[in-house]
Amino acid sequence: MNDSFDTLENVTYEELNEGDTATFARTLTEKELVLFAAVSGDCNPVHLDPEFAANSMFGERIAHGMWSGSLISAALATVMPGPGTIYLDQTLSFKRPVKLEDTLTVNLTVLRKEPKNRVVFQCDVINQNNQKVVTGEAKVIAPTETVNLYKPALPNINIEGYD
Amino acid sequence: MNDSFDTLENVTYEELNEGDTATFARTLTEKELVLFAAVSGDCNPVHLDPEFAANSMFGERIAHGMWSGSLISAALATVMPGPGTIYLDQTLSFKRPVKLEDTLTVNLTVLRKEPKNRVVFQCDVINQNNQKVVTGEAKVIAPTETVNLYKPALPNINIEGYD
Repeated sequence: MNDSFDTLENVTYEELNEGDTATFARTLTEKELVLFAAVSGDCNPVHLDPEFAANSMFGERIAHGMWSGSLISAALATVMPGPGTIYLDQTLSFKRPVKLEDTLTVNLTVLRKEPKNRVVFQCDVINQNNQKVVTGEAKVIAPTETVNLYKPALPNINIEGYD
Repeated sequence: MNDSFDTLENVTYEELNEGDTATFARTLTEKELVLFAAVSGDCNPVHLDPEFAANSMFGERIAHGMWSGSLISAALATVMPGPGTIYLDQTLSFKRPVKLEDTLTVNLTVLRKEPKNRVVFQCDVINQNNQKVVTGEAKVIAPTETVNLYKPALPNINIEGYD
């Protein structure tokens, strides 16, 4: 987890320009699969049970599609524009499955600035083989004031039976 | 968590009809806030720090918007159509904040059936005051074969400092 950075800075509406880009990366671990099942309530065995998943069309456990969506959301909320962003709309197209140990990178690009501090972003999530796993567009209200926040440390989370 | 049901049944493309509805409900606890921050990497203090959130425009801690998105995904994956569904597209419009102890209900409605087992759903997430918090549409490939799966039990998850 990206906890080496302990502050969150934003990019204001004024500072954003068409074509600006930012990235945010995470790797899918078993722990993520369990936590996403717990927090969403989606306990489908294709995400949780190695034996079941081995016999599924995917051949192994896969991530919940919306996990990739949550990474887009995290990229917008913590990287660009960052703190103070208000999320209005998101479209998501799920292109291919995400498997254990895949490293996903969210690529955000400013598509256009609109009146009233609205900004539209292209959101592409790619895996370590440069394959698109999710694409979409986000519309947000960008912050108008610079903020530089401390990033709260997460408490330790222990999952029984997982390291 | 909706663990009183230990099987997951699906509704096939054939069985789905325009206007069919299904629901899926969850309540936002502090534990969900921490887990969603951990699994998405979005540690904005507006989700995690009561004092910071008290001085924000929201006045208290709020859920990550994509948590509501994850409930829509869970409703499609586990209730209607359920196991065997392949997620293609999702649109999300975030309408209002979700606060601790809010109970969200995902209401799914079949908008239309399309060729090649495609089904489009209206997805409305409402709170306990019947206010829409998220709306959108989902397109999926519905399963063509009936399946009735056991639902894996989640391991215990302990968060340091939280009960």
